[in-house]
Amino acid sequence: NTAFNNSPHRRYNILTGEWILVSPHRTKRPWQGKTEKNNQEKRETYDPSCYLCPGNSRAGGETNPDYKGVHSFENDYPALLREEPGQSNLEDGLLKAESETGICKVVCFSPDHSLTLPLMKVEDITKVVGLWKKEYNELGATAGINYVQIFENKGAMMGCSNPHPHGQIWSQKSIPTEVLKKSKHFKDYWQKNKRSLLGDYLEQELELDERILAKNEHFVALIPYWAVWPYEAMIVPRNHYQHIGQLNAEEEKAFAEIIKKLTTKYDNLFETSFPYSSGIHQMPTNGENYEEWHFHMSFYPPLLRSATVKKFMVGYEMFAGPQRDITAEQAAANLNELSDVHYLKQ
Amino acid sequence: NTAFNNSPHRRYNILTGEWILVSPHRTKRPWQGKTEKNNQEKRETYDPSCYLCPGNSRAGGETNPDYKGVHSFENDYPALLREEPGQSNLEDGLLKAESETGICKVVCFSPDHSLTLPLMKVEDITKVVGLWKKEYNELGATAGINYVQIFENKGAMMGCSNPHPHGQIWSQKSIPTEVLKKSKHFKDYWQKNKRSLLGDYLEQELELDERILAKNEHFVALIPYWAVWPYEAMIVPRNHYQHIGQLNAEEEKAFAEIIKKLTTKYDNLFETSFPYSSGIHQMPTNGENYEEWHFHMSFYPPLLRSATVKKFMVGYEMFAGPQRDITAEQAAANLNELSDVHYLKQ
Ligand SMILES: O=P(O)(O)O[C@H]1O[C@H](CO)[C@@H](O)[C@H](O)[C@H]1O
Ligand SMILES: O=P(O)(O)O[C@H]1O[C@H](CO)[C@@H](O)[C@H](O)[C@H]1O
Repeated sequence: NTAFNNSPHRRYNILTGEWILVSPHRTKRPWQGKTEKNNQEKRETYDPSCYLCPGNSRAGGETNPDYKGVHSFENDYPALLREEPGQSNLEDGLLKAESETGICKVVCFSPDHSLTLPLMKVEDITKVVGLWKKEYNELGATAGINYVQIFENKGAMMGCSNPHPHGQIWSQKSIPTEVLKKSKHFKDYWQKNKRSLLGDYLEQELELDERILAKNEHFVALIPYWAVWPYEAMIVPRNHYQHIGQLNAEEEKAFAEIIKKLTTKYDNLFETSFPYSSGIHQMPTNGENYEEWHFHMSFYPPLLRSATVKKFMVGYEMFAGPQRDITAEQAAANLNELSDVHYLKQ
Repeated sequence: NTAFNNSPHRRYNILTGEWILVSPHRTKRPWQGKTEKNNQEKRETYDPSCYLCPGNSRAGGETNPDYKGVHSFENDYPALLREEPGQSNLEDGLLKAESETGICKVVCFSPDHSLTLPLMKVEDITKVVGLWKKEYNELGATAGINYVQIFENKGAMMGCSNPHPHGQIWSQKSIPTEVLKKSKHFKDYWQKNKRSLLGDYLEQELELDERILAKNEHFVALIPYWAVWPYEAMIVPRNHYQHIGQLNAEEEKAFAEIIKKLTTKYDNLFETSFPYSSGIHQMPTNGENYEEWHFHMSFYPPLLRSATVKKFMVGYEMFAGPQRDITAEQAAANLNELSDVHYLKQ
C-alpha cells in the first residue's frame, strides 16, 4: 500500500503498540557528519590472540576446547550472576529496585576465525540453530530462569569487541521490557481472534508481496511495515511456534538457509560485512501458558546510505520516538535487486 | 541507598514505568572493541563553509542574517512538513498508518563557530533559554502543533553533522511515545496525591544527597536513580512548572547557569568536548489540562570509560532493555570530584 509513499507519516508497530515516524521526502539530505570505518579487513582462519578460537586461553583463565563445530560457554564477564544477593527488594519512597539473577553465555558459531554467518555453509549454520535450541531448552528449564534472550552483535559498529563469529545468550529471572510489550499484543489478539497475530500478519504480507525478502517452505524473511532501522528485517516461521525448541531437523535447516540468504543480501548491499544486532524473541520460560506467542528473529542494522554512513538514533529519537527516512518498501526493493550469491564469492 | 551497590539489580524508572538492568560488578571488563576519535580539534570563530555561521548561505539557498546572539530558522531538510497530504489514515488489515505534520527548526546558540554551551557565558546561554521559551510558546500556539520537542545532538558521535553550536526543535501533530509514557506516570501520581511526581522525587533526592550534581535557587541537576546512559543527568526546576514558558527572567538565568555547570563537569570528566543528546520534556500543547506535568531537561551522553570508549546500546539492550555497568551513585561521585572551571580555562 503506497498511500504515504512521499509524505511524512507514522506507522504502527502491531507487536509493541508503538509508532515510528517515516519521512520519505528526506532521503536526499546531504551528509556531512560522521563516517565509519569500512571494515574490509580479511582475517586469518586462526588468530592466536583471539579468546574465542579453539585451544586458546580466555580472559577468565580457562582454555577453549579444540571444538570443531559450535561451542558455548559461560561469559567470563557476565552482566548477570547466578547468586541471589542478600537483599531482594528495595522500596524507599520513590526509589524502587529489585535484585536480578541470571546466566550469560557466549556461543561460538564456528572454529574458523575468518567467517561470518553469510560466509558459512548452510549445514554449519544449522549447527548454530541446533545450539540455540539446546540452550533455549536447557536454560529455560533451569530454576529461576524465566526468559532467554539469544542475540548477536555483529561488527565493531555494534559494540562487538571480537570479530570471531559468535553471539550471546543472556537469560534471567525477570521478563524484560521489550518482551512484555510483545507479550501483551500477542495476547490481546489471541483472546479476540484465537489466532496468531504474527501468523495473520505474515499471511497478509505474503499476499501483498511488497516487503518480502526471501521465503522457503518453513520460514519467511521480510521488512516489517513498521521497521525502525533502515534495513531492519524479520524472519518468521510459517508454523505458529512459540519458541525454537519446537523446530524439527528439517525446519532447523530451513531456518539456517534463510539466515544465510538474508545476511548475504545484507553484505551485498554495500559490499561490506554488514553490521547488525539480531535477536530471537520467543515465549518466556516461567512455566505459564503462552500459546499466543509466535517466535521470530529480528535484525537491526544501522547502515543507511553506504558502508560508512549509518543512521543515528539520537536527539529526537531518544526523546520522542524512532524516525526513519527510506520507507520499508524502498528498503525491500533495494535488497531484492541484489544477488543471492555473496559478493566475495562471485 | 547502597543495598545493591555490588550486585546485579533492576531499577524502576518512575517517569516511564520501565526497568533498567544495572551490573555494578562488571566495570572491570577489559575493552578490546571500537574506540572513537577524541575530538580535540580547535575551531575558528568563523568558518566560511559552515551553513550556520552568520552571513553564510545555506543548503536551501537562503542566506543567514548577520545575527549577534541566537538565531532560529526552519530546517532546510525537515523530517516533518506543514502540509497535510491528501490521505490522513490508512488501515488495511494489520497495516496501520497516519499522516503526520509538523514544523522543524534549527536553533543557533551563538554566532561564534568555535563555542559549545560549557564555553559560553551564562548571559549568552540565557539567550538560548529565552529563544527556547519563545519557540515553545509560538510553536505550541500554532494550530495543529500538539507537542514541541526541543533537543541538541552534540558531537559527531551523536549524529551531529555540523560543530557550530546549535540545537533543533521538532514540533508536531501527534504526541510522541516517550512523552505519552511520562504523561501517564505524572497523571497517575497526581490523581493519587495531588502532587508533582518529579517534585516529590526531587525532595527525596535533595534529602539523600547521593546523586545531586549541582543546585541553585531555582534548579537542581542530578543523576536519576534509574539513569540508563553512563553519565545521564537531569535538570529539574524546583518550582512545579509544566513548561519553560513559565520561567521568569531570573529563572531563565538560573537555568542557563546550571546548564553551564553540568556541561562543564561533563567536559572536565575526560577532558574532551563531551558528546550527548539533550532534550526538554514538557507538557503537550494540544490545549488540554496538564497540571500534573513537571518539565525537565535530560542529557544522554554515550561515553563510558574515556574520551574514546562509549557504551553500546545494542543486542541485549535492543531486544530486552537497557543495561549499565557503573551505578548512578558512582557516576555522580565521579562528576562531583571535578572542578567547576572548564579544563580549557584552568
Ligand atoms: O537533523 P540532523 O542533525 O541532520 O540529524 C541528526 O538528528 C536527527 C534528529 O535526532 C536524526 O534523525 C538524525 O539521524 C541525526 O543524524
Ligand atoms: O558483551 P560484550 O560483547 O562485551 O558487549 C556488547 O554487548 C552487550 C550486550 O548487548 C552490551 O551491553 C555492551 O555494551 C556491548 O559492547
